Amino acid sequence: MALKTGDEYVASIKSLGLEANVMGKKTGNLVEHPLVQPSVRAVAATYDCAHHEATKSLFRVQSPLCRQEINRFTHLHQSTEDLINKVIMQRHCGNITACCFQRCVGLDAANAVFSATYECDREHGTDYHQRFKDYWRWIQMQDLVVDGAMTDPKGDRGKRPKDQIDPDLFLRVVDRKRNGVVVRGAKFHQTGMLNSHEIIVMPTLSMRAGEEDWAICFAIPANTEGIRFIYGRQTSDTRKLEELKLDVGNPAFGGQEVMTVFDNVFVPAERIFLNREVNYSGILVERFAAYHRQSYGGCKVGVGDVLIGAAALIARMNGVEKASHIKDKIVEMIHLNETLYACGIACSAAGHRTDAGNYEIDMLLANVCKLNVTRFPYEIARLATDIAGGLLGTMPSAKDLDDPVAGPFIKKYLATGDGVEVVDRMKVLRLIENLVAGAGSVAYLIESMHGAGPPMAQRIMIGRQADLEGKINLVKGLLHIT
Amino acid sequence: MALKTGDEYVASIKSLGLEANVMGKKTGNLVEHPLVQPSVRAVAATYDCAHHEATKSLFRVQSPLCRQEINRFTHLHQSTEDLINKVIMQRHCGNITACCFQRCVGLDAANAVFSATYECDREHGTDYHQRFKDYWRWIQMQDLVVDGAMTDPKGDRGKRPKDQIDPDLFLRVVDRKRNGVVVRGAKFHQTGMLNSHEIIVMPTLSMRAGEEDWAICFAIPANTEGIRFIYGRQTSDTRKLEELKLDVGNPAFGGQEVMTVFDNVFVPAERIFLNREVNYSGILVERFAAYHRQSYGGCKVGVGDVLIGAAALIARMNGVEKASHIKDKIVEMIHLNETLYACGIACSAAGHRTDAGNYEIDMLLANVCKLNVTRFPYEIARLATDIAGGLLGTMPSAKDLDDPVAGPFIKKYLATGDGVEVVDRMKVLRLIENLVAGAGSVAYLIESMHGAGPPMAQRIMIGRQADLEGKINLVKGLLHIT
Amino acid sequence: MALKTGDEYVASIKSLGLEANVMGKKTGNLVEHPLVQPSVRAVAATYDCAHHEATKSLFRVQSPLCRQEINRFTHLHQSTEDLINKVIMQRHCGNITACCFQRCVGLDAANAVFSATYECDREHGTDYHQRFKDYWRWIQMQDLVVDGAMTDPKGDRGKRPKDQIDPDLFLRVVDRKRNGVVVRGAKFHQTGMLNSHEIIVMPTLSMRAGEEDWAICFAIPANTEGIRFIYGRQTSDTRKLEELKLDVGNPAFGGQEVMTVFDNVFVPAERIFLNREVNYSGILVERFAAYHRQSYGGCKVGVGDVLIGAAALIARMNGVEKASHIKDKIVEMIHLNETLYACGIACSAAGHRTDAGNYEIDMLLANVCKLNVTRFPYEIARLATDIAGGLLGTMPSAKDLDDPVAGPFIKKYLATGDGVEVVDRMKVLRLIENLVAGAGSVAYLIESMHGAGPPMAQRIMIGRQADLEGKINLVKGLLHIT
Amino acid sequence: MALKTGDEYVASIKSLGLEANVMGKKTGNLVEHPLVQPSVRAVAATYDCAHHEATKSLFRVQSPLCRQEINRFTHLHQSTEDLINKVIMQRHCGNITACCFQRCVGLDAANAVFSATYECDREHGTDYHQRFKDYWRWIQMQDLVVDGAMTDPKGDRGKRPKDQIDPDLFLRVVDRKRNGVVVRGAKFHQTGMLNSHEIIVMPTLSMRAGEEDWAICFAIPANTEGIRFIYGRQTSDTRKLEELKLDVGNPAFGGQEVMTVFDNVFVPAERIFLNREVNYSGILVERFAAYHRQSYGGCKVGVGDVLIGAAALIARMNGVEKASHIKDKIVEMIHLNETLYACGIACSAAGHRTDAGNYEIDMLLANVCKLNVTRFPYEIARLATDIAGGLLGTMPSAKDLDDPVAGPFIKKYLATGDGVEVVDRMKVLRLIENLVAGAGSVAYLIESMHGAGPPMAQRIMIGRQADLEGKINLVKGLLHIT
Repeated sequence: MALKTGDEYVASIKSLGLEANVMGKKTGNLVEHPLVQPSVRAVAATYDCAHHEATKSLFRVQSPLCRQEINRFTHLHQSTEDLINKVIMQRHCGNITACCFQRCVGLDAANAVFSATYECDREHGTDYHQRFKDYWRWIQMQDLVVDGAMTDPKGDRGKRPKDQIDPDLFLRVVDRKRNGVVVRGAKFHQTGMLNSHEIIVMPTLSMRAGEEDWAICFAIPANTEGIRFIYGRQTSDTRKLEELKLDVGNPAFGGQEVMTVFDNVFVPAERIFLNREVNYSGILVERFAAYHRQSYGGCKVGVGDVLIGAAALIARMNGVEKASHIKDKIVEMIHLNETLYACGIACSAAGHRTDAGNYEIDMLLANVCKLNVTRFPYEIARLATDIAGGLLGTMPSAKDLDDPVAGPFIKKYLATGDGVEVVDRMKVLRLIENLVAGAGSVAYLIESMHGAGPPMAQRIMIGRQADLEGKINLVKGLLHIT
Repeated sequence: MALKTGDEYVASIKSLGLEANVMGKKTGNLVEHPLVQPSVRAVAATYDCAHHEATKSLFRVQSPLCRQEINRFTHLHQSTEDLINKVIMQRHCGNITACCFQRCVGLDAANAVFSATYECDREHGTDYHQRFKDYWRWIQMQDLVVDGAMTDPKGDRGKRPKDQIDPDLFLRVVDRKRNGVVVRGAKFHQTGMLNSHEIIVMPTLSMRAGEEDWAICFAIPANTEGIRFIYGRQTSDTRKLEELKLDVGNPAFGGQEVMTVFDNVFVPAERIFLNREVNYSGILVERFAAYHRQSYGGCKVGVGDVLIGAAALIARMNGVEKASHIKDKIVEMIHLNETLYACGIACSAAGHRTDAGNYEIDMLLANVCKLNVTRFPYEIARLATDIAGGLLGTMPSAKDLDDPVAGPFIKKYLATGDGVEVVDRMKVLRLIENLVAGAGSVAYLIESMHGAGPPMAQRIMIGRQADLEGKINLVKGLLHIT
Repeated sequence: MALKTGDEYVASIKSLGLEANVMGKKTGNLVEHPLVQPSVRAVAATYDCAHHEATKSLFRVQSPLCRQEINRFTHLHQSTEDLINKVIMQRHCGNITACCFQRCVGLDAANAVFSATYECDREHGTDYHQRFKDYWRWIQMQDLVVDGAMTDPKGDRGKRPKDQIDPDLFLRVVDRKRNGVVVRGAKFHQTGMLNSHEIIVMPTLSMRAGEEDWAICFAIPANTEGIRFIYGRQTSDTRKLEELKLDVGNPAFGGQEVMTVFDNVFVPAERIFLNREVNYSGILVERFAAYHRQSYGGCKVGVGDVLIGAAALIARMNGVEKASHIKDKIVEMIHLNETLYACGIACSAAGHRTDAGNYEIDMLLANVCKLNVTRFPYEIARLATDIAGGLLGTMPSAKDLDDPVAGPFIKKYLATGDGVEVVDRMKVLRLIENLVAGAGSVAYLIESMHGAGPPMAQRIMIGRQADLEGKINLVKGLLHIT
Repeated sequence: MALKTGDEYVASIKSLGLEANVMGKKTGNLVEHPLVQPSVRAVAATYDCAHHEATKSLFRVQSPLCRQEINRFTHLHQSTEDLINKVIMQRHCGNITACCFQRCVGLDAANAVFSATYECDREHGTDYHQRFKDYWRWIQMQDLVVDGAMTDPKGDRGKRPKDQIDPDLFLRVVDRKRNGVVVRGAKFHQTGMLNSHEIIVMPTLSMRAGEEDWAICFAIPANTEGIRFIYGRQTSDTRKLEELKLDVGNPAFGGQEVMTVFDNVFVPAERIFLNREVNYSGILVERFAAYHRQSYGGCKVGVGDVLIGAAALIARMNGVEKASHIKDKIVEMIHLNETLYACGIACSAAGHRTDAGNYEIDMLLANVCKLNVTRFPYEIARLATDIAGGLLGTMPSAKDLDDPVAGPFIKKYLATGDGVEVVDRMKVLRLIENLVAGAGSVAYLIESMHGAGPPMAQRIMIGRQADLEGKINLVKGLLHIT
């Protein structure tokens, strides 16, 4: 076995032969599809970083599971230092791709499933943990991308799965066979799906007695029969289909979102990690969510760095970088971005060993991290919009720049000063547009709000984790109230 | 003369024969171009409202200038009640179009030019005011749309016009003839330009001695020789070119932004309203800006109403409208939106008569209004994103909904409960996307930041207008400090 | 009849012979008590302003009720201009006193009772309105101060009045006689109580069938038998008792808060304005609250002006007034303060005539006004703390300044530059301390939060008043959803 | 040697015989003075915690300097774990005292002086580091409290030390002798001064060539001849002098602030750690400040826990703890408080070894931590005020509660429900008042703003530390801009 390069990864994904409905068409060879390719490239970067001299020591780690050196994106964390390094690695990936690089969800799912199965086995005498270990050893050794699929359609939010107008609105087991189960349902918002070799499916909420059919966790290859992919639209997505790439903003990388349908899909027994275990479904959800909320303290910070850099660069190009209000806004952006990073680092440093042996972040601080992520990127984007100026919403197209009539006018009137190329200025503005109002904003803003659960999910967890009674007791002690 | 209907307006614009560079192509017959048509419709709505029974009394007003009943969008305000009615009218237009309806800028320019020319004539013995009155009487009687063009390219923000690498980076007089002048330069961010009959051009900043050639204010028809239009890109703009309209979000209306080049354009003397009057350029800029900052307390509030309604409707469709955190977020959105409205109303109610006889808003409160507009719509949009859910960034395309394979899956899995059509749910989500991350966000967010000047411009005015010395004197008086 | 001067007012209050429990002692002659006197002076200022040349036209108004010129603080508003002038008057009073001047609550109560009694009579054939008119005509002609008493102790917030452990936790009728009723209970947070001639008592919430005994509104003189006053403590209150006044901060004016007990107080029939009218208790509460929420858009803005002035003055004394970050913070303070003012003005300008004939503010905008008041003064105070520097919490006492040993050191080391007296610098710092962390903060911060109801009360009203269904219908209309 | 107990500490401070000017009087025996005693007790708690079973392992640490077990409050950090444990220890102290416990500043000064002297010696061949090690070994073995004195009066902020109207406005060497120097000046805002055995004096800003006399760092005993203490006033300070303690709020602990004058004080050579070293003064300031900015991520969080507990307890007493808006506000308070904690932990976990061998926090994140501390406690306090209700500003005095007439009324009307003692409710309200508007707010709010430097100081450091050029290069790399 060897750690894959980015190119090897792309070839391996291509060999899966995945097909998807993309804007009304059935499409194959997705790795070369202009809508999908930038997101393949973003994942590929996570492979290449394990080979670059400057980053390989960060991206490679020795796995006790397979006793080999693996890519950290498939690692079961063995220390708080591992948890911290995960965040540092994610920030780096954000720095070089300026988008969602899609490989964290499987990493976070694996660490959650690892400890949840261990505890389930211990309580119920099941054998999920060994199954999962076998599976994940293989993943590590093959250096694969795994998508973690959690979010069900959920239908009417006020109703339980079995009270929906259609019980499939939460993915469920519809048939149980000797050697496995058949599932039906869908998972929404699957960011890295079409770039993944494998899928780990998890329940989306804490199930209750009577909801056993919905309490299922398993893994299958992405090209399993019966799985269908319907591509999600993103703001300004079709700019990626245009001839000139300047207007895309991010010239190399991008994210994607896929609605994934499980149309009576067979899951073999050896890939089932929770089955009818209603009382472990909630534990799994909470842990996966917490790991993933930590992740956002790395990846979004990395994208934030790029947005801050772009705002500083456009200010320099516009001749205002020394203006005190500009400097002040840049400092504010940095402050907010670093506060997110601090939360990512802190929930890692305050992590602890699970009984299963891998390391888990501090649950309270991980939720605090994500709740800040639902706020600060919005303010950072607002400040970037302020600094960038109105051209963000009014700049002519790349095609006009090339037009013999319009082009010279654009070059004449978008000029700022010596040493600034108009096309460079346009590139920076389009990158900012990409992140605050374009395709990149789906990951930087909408996903910051809803990824790993919306703000209310974090608030509920914060309320639960904060030991409010302990704080009340501090007061009673101080005031001698009994 | 009669007040035009929307259809008559469209016909009149079509007859101008305007052409523009639109995404790399020279295009005519713009009123039927799918990118431009929604914005034409939005302007047409301002005409139709003067004919609807429910709104005609608000939209029609008796003009003392032409002694006829006119559309309020061409009115010179005669009272604080007029100023308030302007804001109410703008909110209504925002309500029905959910976009920028583009007709305010000429109204605001006219009221500013009216008083500035009066004062200039009084001080300098010039005759600009009478010229402008003649011109504007004709505008009122013809019921025309006038674009107000202010923002120059500005090049290096740290330099004066004549120190730029190209003196044309601020529009200027390049030749002076017996019967007029020739101007060269460009105006950026011209929202309603291609839907306007006429253009009032104003300087973009307070000019100084030695900068007389840049101190020019005039009006010309939009189809004057030498004027060139280059269409600006907006986020998700090309969805308007797609066959299915669902993904556009706003099915009927939209805005546009145009870069306008003045390539040696001749301006006849009778249309020049300030000429080399450096000490009135700043006054004109401040007044126009203040009127336009008032406008945002109406139009953006009207759009905000729609966004709030959409958030409430999607919450209802999702079955969460009774959840306390949802209700709380809706209340917060309303609170912020009404605070903007309060500022729009207040600067109107506190307005005063100018020496020229029209009414001007309170300058301090108008700037306060706009500074809030650079903040609250962002928070309203963030809250709408929170309520709407992740589908905002991941929902399949309209074409997939129509696809025989993908469509049924979409219909199955986007269902929420009885009585909610999936296509309706998708419409509401696309409308929200339009306003928080799509083409509509250019007007609702980017324009809220930069239209009528960026936040720093308002801060400078607030600092100047607030009588800080008076506040210090209150303290000295109270504390007996001499 | 004549409009009283401040001195005449003080004499008239003195003649009432009020007594109170003040920090453990029964005390009379309150107008000369050093804790109470500053608040008497603040009310007296509202009288004097009706005699000052610069302000008399604002403070005097012709009353249609008594057909005489009265102090606007007893006026039944006859127009939106009256509503606006009320706010302007309040801002002025805040400007000169830098504290709560305590006379608004009676004004707000009167306007609410006026229309509520009219509507009750119309529906139920009662005769409250005439009674109230007779009463208020007398108030106007005598130019009296009336306290409006609303807030009951409320006990367990989760229970109705009759379910409390003590039914008196909401003030109620305990006996009904031929010529009147006997009431028992208490009213909390009575700001102007000990400076008032009369008290209007109102219910604190909307009563229901079965709660008739709590549905009572009436007026009585402040010195009625059975009323007891227990003085409330304020932060740093006893500095007013110290020999040297420098450390008080506000040298002349201040507020006060009183817990008022009604210990079986007889109310004659002619002073009862609602009696068992459960369905008008809520209407009365809402209207009084709304008028009072408008008030805060004037009075707190006036105090805010002083705090802004003090921050600007200390910055000047410290030699930093030109620093860009200081200027920026001052602008932010002004912006927030003027936003509050805008809300006060807007709810007035958007007011309407009641069926009873007086004018009522726009209910939605008045609640929006107050909700902002629960936020912005806190941020203004925070910014003032930032500008003022650490001495706000560490400066030696006035006595040390006079000490022969310590004094010279204080003068040496608190010196900043030529032209700044150390004692003046200390005065300004003490004034800021007074408003952000001292006795003045009770009115500027705590009362901004809770006066006229806490934020949740405003949120509920905003939710009710905003016509959310109308906004949803805008969306349905735009999207053709049925 | 043994680790002192709290009592032993108090005795040792008493033996110093310190005297101070306290509100106009020269006072000795300060440890028994009612204004000072609560702050002595708070420091004593830091000693007792090293003896309590539950906390001793946290508070005790093996020192490589003196090769003994010492109190962590005198430790030179040897690892990132040490840095994290410092923050955890500080949070605990805040938890049990609900005030500033005053012992961090010496700890932070020692760690800064340790590395700065090492580097100075290495560059300049001086011998400060060995001197400091000898000194600090003695401190560790004696288990002493050391005050760190940094903030000079600064006079006109716009001028350098030697341009002030009095050169003593920055503490300086006024005489140089064979065996030491004589200094004159003052240090403001000295929180723990009167409870300290020793003082480390540091410059307040980065000195330049020509300012050698102000570039001085040294240590001396607190009772050195020529040092004078002038006690600072705090909001509501004199409640501590009242007979009944209920109104104080915090019954046992409190802070203090002292202006300290150095009136020609002799400093022996062996206690001088920097002398005329202008280029190390700035380094020392930055490091001390950064350590102290880290500290606030622990101590203020600990106080915040108490305030959150008090808010939750009063909500429970008032019967509203289940209300969704109350729960939501509590969660928000927790979220903000934990974000501060996350910053404290993160700057520790990201710390690094200095060349001198002790550990230093991450400078960027430590400044980010403190900048958040200048904001979030204000919002936490605002929310606590919201939850606590208006009684915070209007509740009668403890003396009235004991009064035979007023007391029964207070007990009757402040009752809420079964199981809640009125006196307990009053205690909780007074504790909240103490922290949001009373003596405790000096530490919780004003010190949060200005301690370790005001927000602008952090902003400057953030701007410097953030590698903005690196972020710009990320953009250039991504966009292929040269």
